[in-house]
Amino acid sequence: MDKVENVRLVEMGQSNFIKPYRILFKQNKKDRIWDGIKVHDSVSVLIYNVTRKKIIVVKQFRPVVYVCNTTNNVQEGISIDTNKNPGTKGITYELCAGIIDKDKSDAEIVKDEILEECGYDVPIENIEKITKFKSSVGIAGCTQTLFYAEVTDDMKKTEGGGREEEGELIDVYEIPADECLKFAMDESYDKPVGMIFGLHWFHMYKLK
Amino acid sequence: MDKVENVRLVEMGQSNFIKPYRILFKQNKKDRIWDGIKVHDSVSVLIYNVTRKKIIVVKQFRPVVYVCNTTNNVQEGISIDTNKNPGTKGITYELCAGIIDKDKSDAEIVKDEILEECGYDVPIENIEKITKFKSSVGIAGCTQTLFYAEVTDDMKKTEGGGREEEGELIDVYEIPADECLKFAMDESYDKPVGMIFGLHWFHMYKLK
Repeated sequence: MDKVENVRLVEMGQSNFIKPYRILFKQNKKDRIWDGIKVHDSVSVLIYNVTRKKIIVVKQFRPVVYVCNTTNNVQEGISIDTNKNPGTKGITYELCAGIIDKDKSDAEIVKDEILEECGYDVPIENIEKITKFKSSVGIAGCTQTLFYAEVTDDMKKTEGGGREEEGELIDVYEIPADECLKFAMDESYDKPVGMIFGLHWFHMYKLK
Repeated sequence: MDKVENVRLVEMGQSNFIKPYRILFKQNKKDRIWDGIKVHDSVSVLIYNVTRKKIIVVKQFRPVVYVCNTTNNVQEGISIDTNKNPGTKGITYELCAGIIDKDKSDAEIVKDEILEECGYDVPIENIEKITKFKSSVGIAGCTQTLFYAEVTDDMKKTEGGGREEEGELIDVYEIPADECLKFAMDESYDKPVGMIFGLHWFHMYKLK
């Protein structure tokens, strides 16, 4: 997964992924402008394997994290030396997650993502909502809803790994439940704050 | 702050804020493309007023949150009816925060932001680091470092409110310390997950 070579930054041009737009408005009678990016709402889920007392998360290579971790000079035309900067510098640990782009309930999308990314076929009644919040309030403003799901070894059907045809290369990673806070605060594992919150919530309400 | 009118979405064109770039690379021998946005690293801080046992946060109008909360049809050419959708639909509650764009230590930037946004002149030794994490791992990948600062009423010098010349219109908002978890989980207050984590961390380690 982390064998990364020949990294170059170029002009974006037309994009299927980054769709910018401009908001014009008046605030307190003053004309204002704000630029944003269209992003889908999403779901994420903290998965707990009760059979083996492990929290199940995903490990993946994030190109923008790699770039930010390896250069202070993010601009078109630069290359990044992958001998000095191996792909491990772009690895993050994240909750299993997915965008809401189908006509299904949030819990059904969570169920699908758990199977695709982590390989567990979990009954929908094992999926409970924790809370929701706003992501990237400066540039996107979309909503992410966070869930909790308990799984057992019996539910494990595949290796997981995501949809390779969509460019998803995901490894499943297991955190011992009683080390959840240690992992959350260990800065040598790059992770989003949603995962840090999820691990603290688990420690407070679910760890026995 | 939330008197918002005449909201229109238009083509972005050239932007001083959203700076996209494209990453070309090989992963496991396959050619891949990823599009990202250049974003500064940032700091945020959970502020606790020990004199009155209040957590100090900021309340502001976030244009992209307003758009996402009021339309499913984010595209150029649409207008949003501000009679049906008052500016309150774009209000978020956030930790005091700022970007790292000066030649100062992170703690010094935190100190400056606390004064600018919340009006407290806090000694730098009252500022402690909690942890750091990655923001917007799909589109930005920048690092946010989270701090904790204790302030007293004696340190209050101004009303705060941010730099209006930079378009910052910020209100200071106070949460009773013993209601930190209730506020964190109350979905009627839009907020980022960094704030939800901060409030749980405060409850676990600082609330007496």
